[in-house]
Amino acid sequence: MFQTILYIVVSLVIVQAEYKFETKWFRVPLDHFGFQRNETFEMKYLVNDDNWDQGSGPIFFYTGNEGQIEVFAKHTGFMWEIAREYKAKLVFAEHRYYGASMPFGNKSLDNEHIGYLSSAQALADYADLINYLQGNVIKPRYPVIAFGGSYGGMLAAYFRIKYPHIVTGAIAASAPVHMFTGMVPCGVFNRLVTSSFRTVDTHCSKNIKQSWGVIRQYSSTTNGSEALRKAFNLCTPVKNATDLQVLMEFLQSMYSSLAMVNYPFASDFLTSLPPEPVRVVCQYLNQSLTGDKLLEAIGKVIDIYTNYDKKNKCVDFMKGDDYGNLDAAGWDFQACTEMVMPMCADGVNDMFEPDPWNFTKFADDCHKKYNVYPRVEMARLEYGGNRLQASSNIVFSNGLRDPWTGGGILDSLNESVRAVVIVDSAHHLDLMPSNPSDPEPVKIARNIHKQHISRWIQEFKDQLATTRRF
Amino acid sequence: MFQTILYIVVSLVIVQAEYKFETKWFRVPLDHFGFQRNETFEMKYLVNDDNWDQGSGPIFFYTGNEGQIEVFAKHTGFMWEIAREYKAKLVFAEHRYYGASMPFGNKSLDNEHIGYLSSAQALADYADLINYLQGNVIKPRYPVIAFGGSYGGMLAAYFRIKYPHIVTGAIAASAPVHMFTGMVPCGVFNRLVTSSFRTVDTHCSKNIKQSWGVIRQYSSTTNGSEALRKAFNLCTPVKNATDLQVLMEFLQSMYSSLAMVNYPFASDFLTSLPPEPVRVVCQYLNQSLTGDKLLEAIGKVIDIYTNYDKKNKCVDFMKGDDYGNLDAAGWDFQACTEMVMPMCADGVNDMFEPDPWNFTKFADDCHKKYNVYPRVEMARLEYGGNRLQASSNIVFSNGLRDPWTGGGILDSLNESVRAVVIVDSAHHLDLMPSNPSDPEPVKIARNIHKQHISRWIQEFKDQLATTRRF
Repeated sequence: MFQTILYIVVSLVIVQAEYKFETKWFRVPLDHFGFQRNETFEMKYLVNDDNWDQGSGPIFFYTGNEGQIEVFAKHTGFMWEIAREYKAKLVFAEHRYYGASMPFGNKSLDNEHIGYLSSAQALADYADLINYLQGNVIKPRYPVIAFGGSYGGMLAAYFRIKYPHIVTGAIAASAPVHMFTGMVPCGVFNRLVTSSFRTVDTHCSKNIKQSWGVIRQYSSTTNGSEALRKAFNLCTPVKNATDLQVLMEFLQSMYSSLAMVNYPFASDFLTSLPPEPVRVVCQYLNQSLTGDKLLEAIGKVIDIYTNYDKKNKCVDFMKGDDYGNLDAAGWDFQACTEMVMPMCADGVNDMFEPDPWNFTKFADDCHKKYNVYPRVEMARLEYGGNRLQASSNIVFSNGLRDPWTGGGILDSLNESVRAVVIVDSAHHLDLMPSNPSDPEPVKIARNIHKQHISRWIQEFKDQLATTRRF
Repeated sequence: MFQTILYIVVSLVIVQAEYKFETKWFRVPLDHFGFQRNETFEMKYLVNDDNWDQGSGPIFFYTGNEGQIEVFAKHTGFMWEIAREYKAKLVFAEHRYYGASMPFGNKSLDNEHIGYLSSAQALADYADLINYLQGNVIKPRYPVIAFGGSYGGMLAAYFRIKYPHIVTGAIAASAPVHMFTGMVPCGVFNRLVTSSFRTVDTHCSKNIKQSWGVIRQYSSTTNGSEALRKAFNLCTPVKNATDLQVLMEFLQSMYSSLAMVNYPFASDFLTSLPPEPVRVVCQYLNQSLTGDKLLEAIGKVIDIYTNYDKKNKCVDFMKGDDYGNLDAAGWDFQACTEMVMPMCADGVNDMFEPDPWNFTKFADDCHKKYNVYPRVEMARLEYGGNRLQASSNIVFSNGLRDPWTGGGILDSLNESVRAVVIVDSAHHLDLMPSNPSDPEPVKIARNIHKQHISRWIQEFKDQLATTRRF
């Protein structure tokens, strides 16, 4: 169950500029699809109108992910950078049950209140908000372009798929829309993570693969456990099987995150990282290592991942990999209900310990935690799975460095549902602020995005001009 | 508030053939869009596989309206008649909260249970059912064509709009998808009803217009009321203002129904009717009439409408115009929540008493009855209002004799969202069993439907053959 952790890291990217926005609130129904409960609540959204042409300028609308919206507003530099050129209004909408958009205040995530957390309800919130921003008119004036990365990218695509009358087009970056049951092999994510390390140096992935057994062996004795603590600079030693499990998941998550954010420039993440972080950490793993030497090398990897800015005295692995302030607690519930993304490892095609996908256990755990069972077909049925040919005006961009690409759309489906595959790009680099170190393929991808955006806006204007009725 | 009554009449059309089907049940979640309530219930659907090619034959899927599904299965002859040619499986799905598809049994319509009645939930039921019929596979084998008339036509179109990955195309007959707030004038329906009568004879509509005052006047005295009872052959006299109101609404509904079902052949409705019923009733109103004479003539109209088969001894107007067995009680709730269709009359452009659309009163009444307030923008936001250009593979057919055409799509929107306007057709005649008296335009419309259906099926097969992944 890596994805519950991984998603938290997603999109917490570099802040390269100071972006300014107004914070606003908009009241939406708790339930858009029925009337059993008629409460409403206020969702948060951020706005910047500095460049907007109020006559006919487009609305660039970020479909907020699993986290507080400021994080996404601050890090989706692409939208900010093209706002002037398009005379666009920027809107970043916060997803219900994340950040401050809590329908039941600080009790929202309690089991008795969490049930209205779903992508469908969030998209309906966004549709309502856009209707309000358009002035609640029958014939809206402003073309709306949706943007999103990762789960936000899925939402941007889904928004166009379900509300084409409200959203003119969508840039869906690194959106793993195929990462559902039966659609891609459950091992694809971990194979791609492994590939990132193996590409740098086959010793690197082999050493990591080797390390799991060594860690287990060391942690089984008091002396070994103390040696492990020292080698990894852990704040607390591994005292029992639970601690060991947490440590192993922390490390798995670390490797996955390093692959996801394997950017060509230094980035200031949750934790700072050097350029090409996978290459950097593999420096310590570039020859066959065993025992103490192997653990010391892994310890250096951990140090780079957790302490590149030298702010931490030790590695507090027991708090998991969630260093961020995304408030993404709700994601675990979404993963347990509609966003069921099977993940597995086999230890053969990947560098992890074998960890088959056990749906029964997963479902039972979900039921224990939330009193719900996963609905594995829900996302496919609601949003189209691999049958999106009937949709239009979506760009699915995926970086070949990004393990989520294993669940992405890599072939264009028709003339206006396009796949953009970016050779040297990690997780939705194309949405980030531009950087002098940006590889050429990312620059090209951003230009392709702009061509589509321009075309969609023109299409909207043409339709507006030719609509006969009303 | 005519529409609550009118809709009940809709689609109760001629049985010309004996159609056989199996009755089946399928379990669906109470709430498809959230997890607050995790109950399930069984929805009913009817199946006929007699002509089906199980290898690749299409599924013809009727998106059930506001009523028990047998009524629609028995009367949508078009589907039955083309099933053999297309080697199609026929499926008629019952809408939740109608017929026997009751989530909470006979308590379903209680205020504490009715909140999960919505078009969105019904469409998600249908999507689930089709997924099951396809064998719950990632790559479905069978093209699915949705059919529906009236509210069922709206659902057929909405099904394609929201689930293009599940439904290949939709025949949406007489679907008033524009009959929402601000989209068409509230008086359009009653103007078109009036037009049906005026076209036959201007005296006809003038006499009807004249009659309201006469009825009011007669009902204000005991003697007058008795004369009225005799003239109209009422089972009970009009004793008070409430009775009068019910009688007036009954008559309005009668005229609307006569216009809707103004078919060129005799039809066996809720109540039997002769061919060209508007022409027939206008025979009695073809010169200026006043007083007793006028009431007698109206009485003859009532007799034809309620007693053409000579089975009723008197007119039981107090039970309203709901002679049918649609179990359509839920529609009033839908009209009070999402399907808010403003209706009005001005007595100038129509033959009715002035009756302005009073949303405040309407909303208050809804709140009193159901503890909900109408969400007037809901259908437009969810289904696209008049901005369906981004959709595809829908035929909107409308008969120019049908007053609901005032809320229909009469201009094609793009190459595959087509409007078919049928000159001599009343309410979704094109979906009914063929009849020797069918006017030529209806036959042409059915052929156009078949051309589209053939094209959609071919499109599905082409996509199936070229899908590269999985």
